[in-house]
Amino acid sequence: MDKPKIKIRFTVSYDGTDYCGWQKQNHGHVKSVAFVLEEALSKLLNEKIGLYASGRTDAGVHALNQVCHFETTKPESFFFNIDFCWAVNSKLPHSIVVKDAWIAPPEFHSTLSSEYKTYRYIVRNSNRPSPMLHRYAHWVRNPVDIDYLNSLCDLLVGTKDFKSFQSVGTEVAHTVRTIYKARWIQKKEGTLEFRITGSGFLKQMVRNIVGTQLHLERTRENPEKFSEIIGLKDRTKAAAPAPARGLYLWKVYYPLELDNKCRKLYKDKLMVKD
Amino acid sequence: MDKPKIKIRFTVSYDGTDYCGWQKQNHGHVKSVAFVLEEALSKLLNEKIGLYASGRTDAGVHALNQVCHFETTKPESFFFNIDFCWAVNSKLPHSIVVKDAWIAPPEFHSTLSSEYKTYRYIVRNSNRPSPMLHRYAHWVRNPVDIDYLNSLCDLLVGTKDFKSFQSVGTEVAHTVRTIYKARWIQKKEGTLEFRITGSGFLKQMVRNIVGTQLHLERTRENPEKFSEIIGLKDRTKAAAPAPARGLYLWKVYYPLELDNKCRKLYKDKLMVKD
Repeated sequence: MDKPKIKIRFTVSYDGTDYCGWQKQNHGHVKSVAFVLEEALSKLLNEKIGLYASGRTDAGVHALNQVCHFETTKPESFFFNIDFCWAVNSKLPHSIVVKDAWIAPPEFHSTLSSEYKTYRYIVRNSNRPSPMLHRYAHWVRNPVDIDYLNSLCDLLVGTKDFKSFQSVGTEVAHTVRTIYKARWIQKKEGTLEFRITGSGFLKQMVRNIVGTQLHLERTRENPEKFSEIIGLKDRTKAAAPAPARGLYLWKVYYPLELDNKCRKLYKDKLMVKD
Repeated sequence: MDKPKIKIRFTVSYDGTDYCGWQKQNHGHVKSVAFVLEEALSKLLNEKIGLYASGRTDAGVHALNQVCHFETTKPESFFFNIDFCWAVNSKLPHSIVVKDAWIAPPEFHSTLSSEYKTYRYIVRNSNRPSPMLHRYAHWVRNPVDIDYLNSLCDLLVGTKDFKSFQSVGTEVAHTVRTIYKARWIQKKEGTLEFRITGSGFLKQMVRNIVGTQLHLERTRENPEKFSEIIGLKDRTKAAAPAPARGLYLWKVYYPLELDNKCRKLYKDKLMVKD
């Protein structure tokens, strides 16, 4: 008889700069984030671990709170007797950090249970680039009109066919998605942040939206042009994607009743609250 | 007769992670920031350029606004006819960015004219490290008592002999310096910033101060212990220096009358103001 398995859910943050993305079938010299995590987990748990995540991120894209899960034959007591995050992190490079972990109920699935997600895209909008932001933001030299960009965001919200913002490469059943919120925010001088929350995102959808919005802003197009591009359902009508370095998978949302069934793993009572 | 020379003053920002510091006599495989800058300037100006800076920064230390100057036989018109910063930056790696440049009066000297400097030291104080801050902040896991640290800062301000915080390696005439301001500030959750302004700083002085303050906080020592350490004028009584990755040369101050004699180089009127 197979050993009983338990599910572990965890949150992970990564700097995507040096990875080929969350996952790739054939990776060459450059490793995927999932591959590195699976290796660390398999070593720690002394069994082959297969990892699932809320979704894939592209090469160079970062994550603040990617949500993953895996199954293990280790008993619950194993996880309560070690600081699981600390133990995994000690086997990971500095570019990947496990932040939080829970025992999840059997019905939890990081990909299938996710309800909606938030991405953020960071733009450095300043005369000069910043060496410290080179890996973490897209640099745009000329002053960007944030009110114009937000007028485009108003045209984005709703349930629409976003085929124009889907890059080729992944087959999906359909290209209709719901965007709940989309907003550009002026952060401290020289930094703009685009925040978008939706039911799901097509391949490179956020980068294609940002690339197209910045292109329309630069060319002083009538905002209606943006609705037109969406309506044409044709990828060739939109602009090139904005660079991966500015994009962050920010948060993944699950149904509250599922969250409530997850039991957090604590070890050190003195730890700073996450 | 020698060609007449003019002085160019500029501000440069760099990510020190991959450099052996501002300058080193004998560098091996790892280049110094000054070396890379001198190479770019010499190529652009087609003459051998020797660079001076407000001061040296250690290996791994960053700078937001390091101030430098050099002399050149190129006429002033050369600099007014190109965007000098843009031209140099196009010859530099992403980790070094020239932000601003001026024609300086003959009496200006980036090292000798500097009046005081501000450094900042960034600490990530959170249960987990952040992959995005690995190069840019020192991670301290246990919650730090910022009020305690600030009580130590009060003991730092003034004109004192800071020999206890001087690392070996550079000969200086004396070890008395004046600290005008020193303060820890709570930034957004999980980030602390130490700001210190002084007439000058000994080798690794800021890192030795931060390392000692964090050590005393961790070991719950009486704050007076900090005054004692200063009074002993003995490096072996202070703690190890905090890591270079958290340290930034933030700003260098010059006499106002000298600043006023510097004429800023502009090219593009549409540029975002620095």
